[in-house]
Amino acid sequence: MKRSERLVAMTNYLVESPWALVSLPFFSRKFDAAKSSISEDLAIINNMFQEEGIGYLKSVAGAAGGVKYIPLYSVENSESFIGKLCEQLEDPNRLLPGGYLFMSDILGEPKTVKTIGRMFATAFSELNIDVVMTVATKGIPLAYAVAACLNVPVVIVRRDPKITEGSTVSINYVSGSSRKIQTMVLPKRSLQEGSNVCIIDDFMKAGGTINGMVNLLAEFNANVSGIGVLSEAEDEEEERVVEDYTSLVKITNVDIIKKQIEVHKGTFFQGQTHSN
Amino acid sequence: MKRSERLVAMTNYLVESPWALVSLPFFSRKFDAAKSSISEDLAIINNMFQEEGIGYLKSVAGAAGGVKYIPLYSVENSESFIGKLCEQLEDPNRLLPGGYLFMSDILGEPKTVKTIGRMFATAFSELNIDVVMTVATKGIPLAYAVAACLNVPVVIVRRDPKITEGSTVSINYVSGSSRKIQTMVLPKRSLQEGSNVCIIDDFMKAGGTINGMVNLLAEFNANVSGIGVLSEAEDEEEERVVEDYTSLVKITNVDIIKKQIEVHKGTFFQGQTHSN
Repeated sequence: MKRSERLVAMTNYLVESPWALVSLPFFSRKFDAAKSSISEDLAIINNMFQEEGIGYLKSVAGAAGGVKYIPLYSVENSESFIGKLCEQLEDPNRLLPGGYLFMSDILGEPKTVKTIGRMFATAFSELNIDVVMTVATKGIPLAYAVAACLNVPVVIVRRDPKITEGSTVSINYVSGSSRKIQTMVLPKRSLQEGSNVCIIDDFMKAGGTINGMVNLLAEFNANVSGIGVLSEAEDEEEERVVEDYTSLVKITNVDIIKKQIEVHKGTFFQGQTHSN
Repeated sequence: MKRSERLVAMTNYLVESPWALVSLPFFSRKFDAAKSSISEDLAIINNMFQEEGIGYLKSVAGAAGGVKYIPLYSVENSESFIGKLCEQLEDPNRLLPGGYLFMSDILGEPKTVKTIGRMFATAFSELNIDVVMTVATKGIPLAYAVAACLNVPVVIVRRDPKITEGSTVSINYVSGSSRKIQTMVLPKRSLQEGSNVCIIDDFMKAGGTINGMVNLLAEFNANVSGIGVLSEAEDEEEERVVEDYTSLVKITNVDIIKKQIEVHKGTFFQGQTHSN
């Protein structure tokens, strides 16, 4: 196989297997090429990935070593993506009764969802995440997008236990927006003790739902390693119960009468030091 | 930029943008290369994609022409993937009360979900799908995986209207498994008249839920172009109300007392003629 052909196959392989350790001998056998040639190929791929702002190849030394593709989204790409998203969200036609924003169309675009996932995966790339957790329904596609980049599984918290979940652990929590006591359940076999969990959701006001997930994780003796929400909005009536989180956009000054909304960049961009 | 570098960047670009028409002049400008060189690059990429069984580059002739990456999953890859999935599902520990199977762990793996999506996208690749539709909750990751391959949006049917959806259209339907009358809602602004819709869900017994989605689509004057379910099971008490569908696996002979299940390949493999 020629180098040109090998580069196409290797690029695809790496892009499809983020965070997976790939040994040089594996590529060497797969493409029937000398290890020195494979090394050169990987250097070319690493350079181009960095140039395109989509991540880099991490070398792992030693006998069991190799490379891992770490997908990242550059600060430049993130700024431009979120800038456009803010504009889209400021469209007054999105305003719904109660000051909510219609976002289902945006969350329905696989490419947008993928980019959002990539941004969170960048923010959490150093945290050794084992599992991504979300609550049904709107957070699900975002959680899968993050998990795909980090190459870890997703667990989904539900508000109603279903027979197909098997036995579950449930907790009660107070929802910030409705002030009602609600229930959350998670299948017993879905989480191992000591897992490092990243919580993902589409929206946070006071943070009651996120806080519920934090309490649920305590029941499983799992660690909250990171919290990511696509959009946050202030709750005038209630103080926020979640402190350490990453948001991509911040919704402020919703004025239903004047039909105006302001959407700004979220905490993701505060003290942004992600390299690449 | 050297050919080797260009091939890495072009491969990544195409893999990230399935079904999107990319013109030769676009690549030519982006990589500052002659159109003839770009043509040669595309031929190399096309060959390798076909060799790896992940699809092909479709040429679109004419002034507004270019190439589109059509992701496919080869029959060989599909057989091997589904073979392993059947084995996993036949594990008696998955048996739940009522003869249901625990599948949340499998549906929680982004890579597995992606492959399932790719298989459905292969089955429906000639159908000019405009939108992928599913019902909350378990079908959501599968629907996004299909939609990502087809480069179309997802719309999610819910069982309970939420304020963040805006105004909705609702229908009542009879669920096969529980025999209860249930409601389904879809935001009014989520579907255009005449859209070609592909329905995706994780599980089908009698097909009441799928049939509900078919009826909901009729309210929107949209077309049901394809129906895909990950797993189907027979319902001893009720006849199936959905006829034309693609399933990946078929669950039969569930014996709770003997703790046995049989899982076979689904209708996807009947008269399989997908090229590639």
